[in-house]
Amino acid sequence: MKPIKKRLLTPGPTMVPERVLEALSRPTLYHRSPEFKSVFLETRERLKKLLRTEGEVLILTSSGTGAMEAAVSNLFNPGDSAVVVVGGKFGQRWEELCRAYGVEPVKVEVEWGKAVDVDSVRKAVEENPGVKGVLVQICETSTGTVHDVKAIGEVLKDHSDVLLVADGITAYGVYDIPTDDWGIDVAITGSQKALMTPPGLAVISLNEKAQERLCEGRSYYFNLSKELKNQRKGQTAYTTATNLVVALNEALKMIEEEGLEEVARRHFVLAEATRAGVKALGLSLFSESPANGVTAVVSPEGVNGQEVVRIAREEFGVTIAGGQEHLKGKIFRLSHMGYVDIFDVLTGLEVTELALRKLGYSGFKFGDSVSAALEVYRKLEGQVEVD
Amino acid sequence: MKPIKKRLLTPGPTMVPERVLEALSRPTLYHRSPEFKSVFLETRERLKKLLRTEGEVLILTSSGTGAMEAAVSNLFNPGDSAVVVVGGKFGQRWEELCRAYGVEPVKVEVEWGKAVDVDSVRKAVEENPGVKGVLVQICETSTGTVHDVKAIGEVLKDHSDVLLVADGITAYGVYDIPTDDWGIDVAITGSQKALMTPPGLAVISLNEKAQERLCEGRSYYFNLSKELKNQRKGQTAYTTATNLVVALNEALKMIEEEGLEEVARRHFVLAEATRAGVKALGLSLFSESPANGVTAVVSPEGVNGQEVVRIAREEFGVTIAGGQEHLKGKIFRLSHMGYVDIFDVLTGLEVTELALRKLGYSGFKFGDSVSAALEVYRKLEGQVEVD
Repeated sequence: MKPIKKRLLTPGPTMVPERVLEALSRPTLYHRSPEFKSVFLETRERLKKLLRTEGEVLILTSSGTGAMEAAVSNLFNPGDSAVVVVGGKFGQRWEELCRAYGVEPVKVEVEWGKAVDVDSVRKAVEENPGVKGVLVQICETSTGTVHDVKAIGEVLKDHSDVLLVADGITAYGVYDIPTDDWGIDVAITGSQKALMTPPGLAVISLNEKAQERLCEGRSYYFNLSKELKNQRKGQTAYTTATNLVVALNEALKMIEEEGLEEVARRHFVLAEATRAGVKALGLSLFSESPANGVTAVVSPEGVNGQEVVRIAREEFGVTIAGGQEHLKGKIFRLSHMGYVDIFDVLTGLEVTELALRKLGYSGFKFGDSVSAALEVYRKLEGQVEVD
Repeated sequence: MKPIKKRLLTPGPTMVPERVLEALSRPTLYHRSPEFKSVFLETRERLKKLLRTEGEVLILTSSGTGAMEAAVSNLFNPGDSAVVVVGGKFGQRWEELCRAYGVEPVKVEVEWGKAVDVDSVRKAVEENPGVKGVLVQICETSTGTVHDVKAIGEVLKDHSDVLLVADGITAYGVYDIPTDDWGIDVAITGSQKALMTPPGLAVISLNEKAQERLCEGRSYYFNLSKELKNQRKGQTAYTTATNLVVALNEALKMIEEEGLEEVARRHFVLAEATRAGVKALGLSLFSESPANGVTAVVSPEGVNGQEVVRIAREEFGVTIAGGQEHLKGKIFRLSHMGYVDIFDVLTGLEVTELALRKLGYSGFKFGDSVSAALEVYRKLEGQVEVD
């Protein structure tokens, strides 16, 4: 049987709600029109609420990596140094960006799948006086790990000259994060993750401290001073992806309607259900500090994780994600981020069962993961009475 | 947790594929334009292939009931009599339509949930010389029952003056039905079932025998002679739902791409998986001759089927169907018709488990239905090797 449906269970791009697709397909607005200006300002306000920041929030027409580049190239000067937490592919990206812009990375290396030890960040900052920032992921998507950025923010309270730059690309909209309270000076996210919008937009917040640090951007396109000046007036420096902005605005409305706390709770419940399901198959989680947006699963002995991904996609129409870099083949990743409900989570577990069985792994009975996931769901959900 | 997604698992309207929704939203065509004419003729040709008939296939802008009315009012005269198989709500509709148009119904009553005994149809025809037709459902949607219309067609081979009129509204696109070979003179279906298109279009086929029987239609709107004359040229008597026709054409393309045999096989496998899942919960099927498009489940002792439906919809966002008429509260119905894959089937079973548990029925462990359904799926599917 060939699959007749395509289901997207990757940690970005994620499934886009029908309402957002409808918004996306509205007639294109001129980016200098009053109508678009009003949508743009509204979207920025909604993003501020999402990020819980009093700072400025800029929308960039790029992937999340563009916003990371904007942060490095606009907030640091060549010769500056910055502490970089490297515990996965996206930590590496911070390091690469620093090198690309002549910023010396002071690396805090973390074993992939572990959360950074906050004391090692403290030590790196203290032992390297003059470091201008700490660059970290809130969630390291490549390993499905959440770092304790709140604790890092605490550490940096004694270092007012150090900017805390947090890549929250798979964290905002998964967790309810009080950006300002945590001491995050610069927060980054992207449209195609928990924000339930197609790829193409990145978001970067700048509190006052970060705004004061803006230097002459060395990227022409990612010029945050210029964007700041423009976006305060509802303009962008260059043509932005107007349809995507309209779509993002609609997605943010949906988050507001559900309520950010409730959105975060849903992600927690779905993540717990996923984790219980995975364990019920005799598998283990790759991360010691598993994130609520994506679950990295260790492929069982003798099973290539890439084959799980291939079978899920080719034979069942479900796209899940494999491992990256040295984790390729060793893990696979089930996303439960954004427009996801319990039935999507169960689909991810079911396709895992089907693929694993096909690959000869037999440490379970069909439905075991669903059984465990539903028990956890029911318990946490509280909606369904305990019998 | 409020449901964030809506899932449609009713026996019509059914889920509409993204491709079909896209086609639906193309700019509206003028119903007298050459462009529309070409789409309309193409759609009629595709319907002929779907129905496997050399007869004429007409598209009506109405629900399926409209096509039933068109059949009764255009093929029978007041004072005529017709054998009517009544084993559910839609059999009753044939009877009501006959009475509305002065056609005397010779009722073959069938206990709801049972297939008609073909001999009783034979007897009704033989004992009532002069009956002009046999009106039957291929699938009686209200009870999830499939009648053996092929066998009825065999019986009627000796009665060339009796028209076999088959309501295949939830049968075409679920089964691969050779309309002509089975001796069906008039076949009826609708857009919103296995044809994966929103409601609004009905289809009626007329073989030569049926065309010869066309009388002065007593409905102004449902005038099959007039439609026949117009539709042969790619026109309709009155304005048709042009966007729906474009959408239906796309849906039929999808069926052709998958292949009608494969489509029928998919429905068989999904129905078998559903039936196994239901039984694994200790529940029984309502029908003794269960259809492949929809499964009617007997509500367990002490559980009101309407409550299962309500909880599924209100608390989990999944719309399934209840029972109709005297079956209200006694059964609920899970559809697996049209744009449905194994994961949709499992969602239907999972929501059943969640709702039943909430209603105090505890004769199962979470995941039991999924386990049974996946085992059957794997066995029938043959794609996943047996370990």
